[in-house]
Amino acid sequence: MRYGVLGAGKRVRAILLLEFCRACGGSWELAMPFACAIEMVHAYSLIHDDLPCMDNDPLRRGKPSCWKAFGETTALLAGDGLLTKAFETASGSTAPPDRALAALQILAQSAGDTGMLGGQVIDLEYENRPMPEELLVRMYGQKTGALLRAAVKIGCVLAGADENKIFFADQYAQKIGLAFQIVDDILDVTGDEQALGKPIGSDQESGKTTFVTLYSLEEAQKQVEALTDEARRLLDKFAWEDEFLCTLTDRLAVRKN
Amino acid sequence: MRYGVLGAGKRVRAILLLEFCRACGGSWELAMPFACAIEMVHAYSLIHDDLPCMDNDPLRRGKPSCWKAFGETTALLAGDGLLTKAFETASGSTAPPDRALAALQILAQSAGDTGMLGGQVIDLEYENRPMPEELLVRMYGQKTGALLRAAVKIGCVLAGADENKIFFADQYAQKIGLAFQIVDDILDVTGDEQALGKPIGSDQESGKTTFVTLYSLEEAQKQVEALTDEARRLLDKFAWEDEFLCTLTDRLAVRKN
Repeated sequence: MRYGVLGAGKRVRAILLLEFCRACGGSWELAMPFACAIEMVHAYSLIHDDLPCMDNDPLRRGKPSCWKAFGETTALLAGDGLLTKAFETASGSTAPPDRALAALQILAQSAGDTGMLGGQVIDLEYENRPMPEELLVRMYGQKTGALLRAAVKIGCVLAGADENKIFFADQYAQKIGLAFQIVDDILDVTGDEQALGKPIGSDQESGKTTFVTLYSLEEAQKQVEALTDEARRLLDKFAWEDEFLCTLTDRLAVRKN
Repeated sequence: MRYGVLGAGKRVRAILLLEFCRACGGSWELAMPFACAIEMVHAYSLIHDDLPCMDNDPLRRGKPSCWKAFGETTALLAGDGLLTKAFETASGSTAPPDRALAALQILAQSAGDTGMLGGQVIDLEYENRPMPEELLVRMYGQKTGALLRAAVKIGCVLAGADENKIFFADQYAQKIGLAFQIVDDILDVTGDEQALGKPIGSDQESGKTTFVTLYSLEEAQKQVEALTDEARRLLDKFAWEDEFLCTLTDRLAVRKN
């Protein structure tokens, strides 16, 4: 469990959760159990994704993936353990119980069959055949977007933000979520294996539909820039103490790993 | 997910949760989301336990196990989905938020590395070598006992019961939990495959330590009876409307599946 969650990683979901809580007037200490929980959910999903019966990936973040390092059985249980620990940690929140309960429901919904797991299922169903663009956007929205959206919404909810704020935060997360996934598609073609910590070209090899196969590299890059601009503008709806989140939003668009 | 959770099964955990909520003056409607949640957690654990990298079991409750019916990948995700759905369902509880949050934490703790999953890990570590009795009791306490204890405690907590009631409920669950597991050990030797819905003799085949290998069939049966008596007496601490739970306690000791 530690190997899967405490290694390298950008901690984007945790950072977004803490920052949006702060932007809505909450304290980040209040949001910390949920920030940890969302990283555990993310880590569990990577451990199970890498398993032989899933993507059969031997490498993750530049190290042997969990099953490669500890065996399949231990990796299965470590993933199960992290998903469970996420809810154990979040339910220990000291936020007002009604807010904590609402936040827990957002977390569970985003990770489940109508969120991340549902996206995973679509992904597997179309592994070796072309996926229509509409479904690709939906799949990305569930597989990557759902947890990012949960992160910002949970931050807002824990701070007691109004519906308006939650709406704009959600819009923001949808933009950067799609941009994030398109950047992944681009990096799988143009990326540096050393910086990425995983082999490139795997999408093409497995015949996956991506934004790069649907459009061109240039067109995909333009979409990332447009989405990032829109996301940046949505940040104006919040009163920020500093420029941290604007900088983060820009940096995600030009990331190399 | 439906195949794994809606098939045959005794629903012991759900029934205990609902009954203890009622015994502490709560309404069973209030406890229903948690009763569903705990059955989902139980069902997920069975799906993952049966996987090829775990027990490699082709049969469950008289039907092909989930991976045998739908393939390994789908079974993995169905288990993940049920675990997630459990917390989604429980967090939708209409109980007072502070009680719901406390109940959620009990559920997560009982299922995680200090509970059910931890027991699973001990079990796997000793798969082909003898286990000392002390560790066997601890392993049973975690693998089967933790979720049964969670069931009764959650029922009490949702009803707003005092610490005393929760303590006696927990004691009760510990007794029937151990008895339940010893009966499993006995049925693996004396059971009827048709009634059980799974092959017998699997413990002996895999060289597992059980209460039957540690003692004799007769001695194990005596322990079941003693534990059941103790459990029955603990029920006197609660004011029951009817004899249902007393009958259930007795029936669990003489069950054939």
